[in-house]
Amino acid sequence: METEGKVIKCKAAVAWEPGKPFSIEEVEVAPPKAHEVRIKIVASGVCHTDWTFLHEVGKTMNPQPFPVILGHEGAGVVESVGPGVTKMSKGDKVIPLVVPQCGQCERCLINVTVQCLCDGDKSAMSKIHPDAPLDKVCLLGCGVSTGYGAAVNTGKVESGSTCAVFGLGAVGLAAVMGCKAAGASRIFAVDINPDKSEIAKTFGATEFLNPKDHSKPIQEVLKKLTNGGVDFSLECVGNVGVMVRDGAVEGSCTPAGGVCVMVGWTRIGELTLVSEDILLGKTLKGSYFGGWKSAEAVPKLVQDYMSGKLLLDEFVTHRLTLDQVNQAFELMITGKSIRTVIKM
Amino acid sequence: METEGKVIKCKAAVAWEPGKPFSIEEVEVAPPKAHEVRIKIVASGVCHTDWTFLHEVGKTMNPQPFPVILGHEGAGVVESVGPGVTKMSKGDKVIPLVVPQCGQCERCLINVTVQCLCDGDKSAMSKIHPDAPLDKVCLLGCGVSTGYGAAVNTGKVESGSTCAVFGLGAVGLAAVMGCKAAGASRIFAVDINPDKSEIAKTFGATEFLNPKDHSKPIQEVLKKLTNGGVDFSLECVGNVGVMVRDGAVEGSCTPAGGVCVMVGWTRIGELTLVSEDILLGKTLKGSYFGGWKSAEAVPKLVQDYMSGKLLLDEFVTHRLTLDQVNQAFELMITGKSIRTVIKM
Repeated sequence: METEGKVIKCKAAVAWEPGKPFSIEEVEVAPPKAHEVRIKIVASGVCHTDWTFLHEVGKTMNPQPFPVILGHEGAGVVESVGPGVTKMSKGDKVIPLVVPQCGQCERCLINVTVQCLCDGDKSAMSKIHPDAPLDKVCLLGCGVSTGYGAAVNTGKVESGSTCAVFGLGAVGLAAVMGCKAAGASRIFAVDINPDKSEIAKTFGATEFLNPKDHSKPIQEVLKKLTNGGVDFSLECVGNVGVMVRDGAVEGSCTPAGGVCVMVGWTRIGELTLVSEDILLGKTLKGSYFGGWKSAEAVPKLVQDYMSGKLLLDEFVTHRLTLDQVNQAFELMITGKSIRTVIKM
Repeated sequence: METEGKVIKCKAAVAWEPGKPFSIEEVEVAPPKAHEVRIKIVASGVCHTDWTFLHEVGKTMNPQPFPVILGHEGAGVVESVGPGVTKMSKGDKVIPLVVPQCGQCERCLINVTVQCLCDGDKSAMSKIHPDAPLDKVCLLGCGVSTGYGAAVNTGKVESGSTCAVFGLGAVGLAAVMGCKAAGASRIFAVDINPDKSEIAKTFGATEFLNPKDHSKPIQEVLKKLTNGGVDFSLECVGNVGVMVRDGAVEGSCTPAGGVCVMVGWTRIGELTLVSEDILLGKTLKGSYFGGWKSAEAVPKLVQDYMSGKLLLDEFVTHRLTLDQVNQAFELMITGKSIRTVIKM
């Protein structure tokens, strides 16, 4: 059936209220206007930031619109294009971008940031290799790119260095993979879930540490193991408590030039750091979409997966249908899944 | 009179108790032991860290020894050397180093830190050019090197960038000079003391801002002036309140890759930062002795002053004798001096 130029009906997981289960409904999608593209989403990873969005609403200053259709780690095929679209054609495989890259604004023209100033509807998609398996490369739309880039771009992890990664979801495991790719000599993977030990090693961790196995705070354990602290520590939990109340992430990196990278997304909470620790020479950095210039980087990351440089298959522990989306969130929150991919 | 090998008597400003005035007394100094050097201090700058040391005692976890002879921004001449000293001879002009550099420990061998692991009595001195004026180059022993290096080494201020320096004592003015040397296009110098406006411009500030002249918080003023925030902000007050309670330093740098450098020394207090600000891509760094590898850098900085690349004379607003040391602190705390140099 020819759908071009027509309003179409699609299934969507609709969030009507903060913190409530999704409702699977039929929605109408208008044809693309000028400079717009309509995509048939084929697969989508279920990312923790969707959960954060739903559960931090009302706890921050940022008002969030409801009802809302979440899902930001997708991959699909261009169904039709609006007037003026020249870079995409019907049938192209694409990954929608969480962070756009127009390539022309003042921020796109400098290296230190990936925060494009364009309005977010433009330049928010990458055309990828026609042979790319969409149910795998969708993970490059958010989680895997974020964690991997936090290590290689933001932290600039060095060859021979020591690293600690806190939180072994998809972002944390991708960070472990990034530390390995950068040539780190020791990679400590930290999680309170003992089931993460094996998979962490798959991605390159040299040691797994469960804070519950130790009577001392985990930062003390790490300091002892590394003669004063790791060179790079990465927060991939999205829980400021890990960094603040326990001081684990910041405390585990060496005051002698240690770099602490915050990756896990949250809008809640403040970071409290001891002044002297920072003054002696630590660096604290935040990583946003792994520091990738999105539109140009995502197709390259897809190629890296296809040529075997990047692991993706190993993240996908569950495959579910859109009707099972609430189950996918349950698997994530209980630590039973790394990534669930929803196939449409 | 030949003093070599003998116990000698010297005048010293002794601090007997936290927060009390110094007492000028005669002290005995033993001859140098193996690998030690005895220096005749000719001049010393009065640095805010001495004041911090005296006034933060008891407010931190770190016990401080009393009585103590402070003064760590000195320059002098080698009076005699102990057995085994090969790199220094009687008569050499030297600057004692706040942070040593042995050149051999694991930290000296890496670039990311200047915190030498040696015991602090070794490799804690730089031999400098024989023509160097000691009453000027003493400032390179701490304050000026610290501020200048915070901009050029730690912050890595870029050509064409925008900068804001908070606190216009010697460290802050040296940071302004560093931003200028790095080619910053706009340098905002910020202080609540209007008398600092002129001198800030001497060191390269393009604009002076007094927070008291504005009804809005100074970070809001800076954001407006720079379309979202400066590229580099430097805290040179040594007062966490500037960064935390007011959020001025961290808040004035752009979330799009802004770098916030903490320079002013304190052992007190915690930094509280909004998670989201960091996560969007800010970097927070601490600068320790301006990120200089001390033993090799200080003689080069002396040369830079002698060849006109670095300003030093302009920092010295007052010259006093050791008997007037308490007056020197009073001038500093009330903001009337930039640097007082004590000549012996």
